Amino acid sequence: MSAPESTAFRQAIPVDQIRYNEQGLVPAIVQDHLDGTVLMMAWMNRESLQKTLETGETWFWSRSRDEFWHKGETSGHTQRVRSLRYDCDSDALLVSVEQIGDIACHTGERSCFHQVDGGVTPPPADTLSQVFGVISDRRDNPSPDSYTCKLLAGGDNKILKKIGEESAEVVMAFKDDDAEAIAGEVADLFYHTLVALAHHKVDIKAVYRKLQERRR
Amino acid sequence: MSAPESTAFRQAIPVDQIRYNEQGLVPAIVQDHLDGTVLMMAWMNRESLQKTLETGETWFWSRSRDEFWHKGETSGHTQRVRSLRYDCDSDALLVSVEQIGDIACHTGERSCFHQVDGGVTPPPADTLSQVFGVISDRRDNPSPDSYTCKLLAGGDNKILKKIGEESAEVVMAFKDDDAEAIAGEVADLFYHTLVALAHHKVDIKAVYRKLQERRR
Repeated sequence: MSAPESTAFRQAIPVDQIRYNEQGLVPAIVQDHLDGTVLMMAWMNRESLQKTLETGETWFWSRSRDEFWHKGETSGHTQRVRSLRYDCDSDALLVSVEQIGDIACHTGERSCFHQVDGGVTPPPADTLSQVFGVISDRRDNPSPDSYTCKLLAGGDNKILKKIGEESAEVVMAFKDDDAEAIAGEVADLFYHTLVALAHHKVDIKAVYRKLQERRR
Repeated sequence: MSAPESTAFRQAIPVDQIRYNEQGLVPAIVQDHLDGTVLMMAWMNRESLQKTLETGETWFWSRSRDEFWHKGETSGHTQRVRSLRYDCDSDALLVSVEQIGDIACHTGERSCFHQVDGGVTPPPADTLSQVFGVISDRRDNPSPDSYTCKLLAGGDNKILKKIGEESAEVVMAFKDDDAEAIAGEVADLFYHTLVALAHHKVDIKAVYRKLQERRR
């Protein structure tokens, strides 16, 4: 994170214009800066928001313990703030963070929002991350009828040949300036690239990090 | 959306196990199902959660008007629920939706979380969508020193040649099984593909929709 970017968020929030509730609190939604996963929701008061702005790490107000809560102070899973926004009626905050350790929940799950009835599943992130998750699951739990499993079984030579084919089809769709074909062919190219990533156990987030680095 | 997927969320939330606050309310974070953008935060009571589960569209409780609020009823910008999750202490909900009209905020902005001090900017989504946003901005506001602008100025033949080159480099990196090179080359391939999409004014969301359709 470059110096201008790392401090830019400090001027982002007019602390005095936020509408705190009767208890002096405002809900803060915490979101992963790479894939948009909602990691947790907690409460800030004016002082914890100020501490967040000053330190560049998230500080909340614990309603159960009635005290400041520096997220990650004991677990080491701190959150580095990338950006801070507030909503149209100024009574909710959205904090984009780099989650150290990639674990936000005290249960050890990545996100606090992992509960569905009778089970635990990761919450939705962006489409590419979702598809990558499905492909990785197919890799670890193969089913014979799945196209993805057949590709993975064919190894590099089968998967990479498809990347060559699909990139040529992407070029042709752009040359034809056919919006529908472009979307479809780019989807195919991305999908087969995700299969290759899963095959080599390289996380899609490593790709996202490279893209973020180049924006500095 | 296939039938099983469309109704699966109805069993996802044990309405009686949610911990509503003293006013009988629970905060509900609403997130776009394609790119993970946080669109809004509003409040549900037990009955509006029940209505949401029954209708497959979001219903909230308006604290200012003290009445049920069927999101989009007047604007037409309803939200079709794709999934519903609750957090580790059962006092917050995360609702993944298809936002009709791609506008959630009453101001006409896509997301309610568009406010930063002294300006309006879209909130963070996933990395690919962020990069696509930057590229589209470069297209609309060219600056001579930008590599992206030079690529765009070169048109299809310059941009698409790079897709050919980068896809070959992706194949070689996978063949070398070099995780660092793989992440870098896939980032390059994705970036140049995004430049081509911006050049042809095809939204990254059209690609995401294709990928989601294929998961059905």
